[in-house]
Amino acid sequence: MRQALHHLTIETRGKGLTEITRPVRLWLQETGITTGLLTLWCTHTSASLTVQENADPTVRRDIAAFFEDLVPEHRQYIHDDEGPDDMPAHLRTMLTGVNLSIPVAHGAPTLGVWQGIYLFEHRRQPHRRTVVLHVLGD
Amino acid sequence: MRQALHHLTIETRGKGLTEITRPVRLWLQETGITTGLLTLWCTHTSASLTVQENADPTVRRDIAAFFEDLVPEHRQYIHDDEGPDDMPAHLRTMLTGVNLSIPVAHGAPTLGVWQGIYLFEHRRQPHRRTVVLHVLGD
Amino acid sequence: MRQALHHLTIETRGKGLTEITRPVRLWLQETGITTGLLTLWCTHTSASLTVQENADPTVRRDIAAFFEDLVPEHRQYIHDDEGPDDMPAHLRTMLTGVNLSIPVAHGAPTLGVWQGIYLFEHRRQPHRRTVVLHVLGD
Repeated sequence: MRQALHHLTIETRGKGLTEITRPVRLWLQETGITTGLLTLWCTHTSASLTVQENADPTVRRDIAAFFEDLVPEHRQYIHDDEGPDDMPAHLRTMLTGVNLSIPVAHGAPTLGVWQGIYLFEHRRQPHRRTVVLHVLGD
Repeated sequence: MRQALHHLTIETRGKGLTEITRPVRLWLQETGITTGLLTLWCTHTSASLTVQENADPTVRRDIAAFFEDLVPEHRQYIHDDEGPDDMPAHLRTMLTGVNLSIPVAHGAPTLGVWQGIYLFEHRRQPHRRTVVLHVLGD
Repeated sequence: MRQALHHLTIETRGKGLTEITRPVRLWLQETGITTGLLTLWCTHTSASLTVQENADPTVRRDIAAFFEDLVPEHRQYIHDDEGPDDMPAHLRTMLTGVNLSIPVAHGAPTLGVWQGIYLFEHRRQPHRRTVVLHVLGD
């Protein structure tokens, strides 16, 4: 039984989903661990991790529109030092989460056929984001 | 230290919660691992995993009603290939999550007295769902 | 490779966030495990775990106000045995989650600079809450 750790850097283009399934799979393959547990941790409070359908881009547009309504920018917030997207970014992060732990089998995460792993950027501006990858297994 | 992996199949009856605490506990016992970490991964984008009170069925009805309002079917979605419950199913999955990692002690998950593990089906039609179970420990 | 398990007790003062980053870090140091995976499990259905900005108290006030609106007490619930905050507490727990798994490096959880770990109490009255801590590594 052994483990490996890696910091993955993702450049986002402002609000929206960036798929990271491929770099995660590649790193996992490099570790040589075939059975185990893969954990992803997003080190921010205004970007999150989510699993979504990786086929249809219209899904992503509906997601964006839904979250604009669920956690609106025009709501009155006390904390707005960094602009109207500051506090909504924190709330969207709380609702979608910064952590995923996925079993590993045959050298790959046990994702369903339609599942992709996404970084969900909640700030308007592009950001450089870090996701810590950890795997434990053999 | 060793690990075990299993694919649990659950037949849902359309929208709502199906308790899976018992089959999860039974599988864990069969592995013989008494201390460790148990991970559940739901391999879908329209069904999720959640922890709820396992006593009162009225809780489940309130949950159903609340999510119908939070992510309504009658909202206008671009992605509706599979009907009005398609996109709401994706959004409810994002909000409730597809992953749980529970410490294991004395051969059982360290659930609280009132906690039960549930598969949350978000589609109207019954579905066959898969939850990957993984445990690491000794 | 070894593991350690601990039950952390937190006294809440009613609805709101209680930071638990410090006791979690201290316990982790005591285990002597420097690389691995740390898991937190909140054993309740009316309190959750979340990661938030640990600097600004106005963030916490905005979070409280947002959740009062997202899951209102004045909504009609069937399950209200323990008062108007009973069912909203269950729903808020579902939306924010009871589980976090964080990679460990150099003897500490790999939290971002602004990230703090919080117990989110959803009941009006103060409660004694339990969070199970588990670490696996070496």
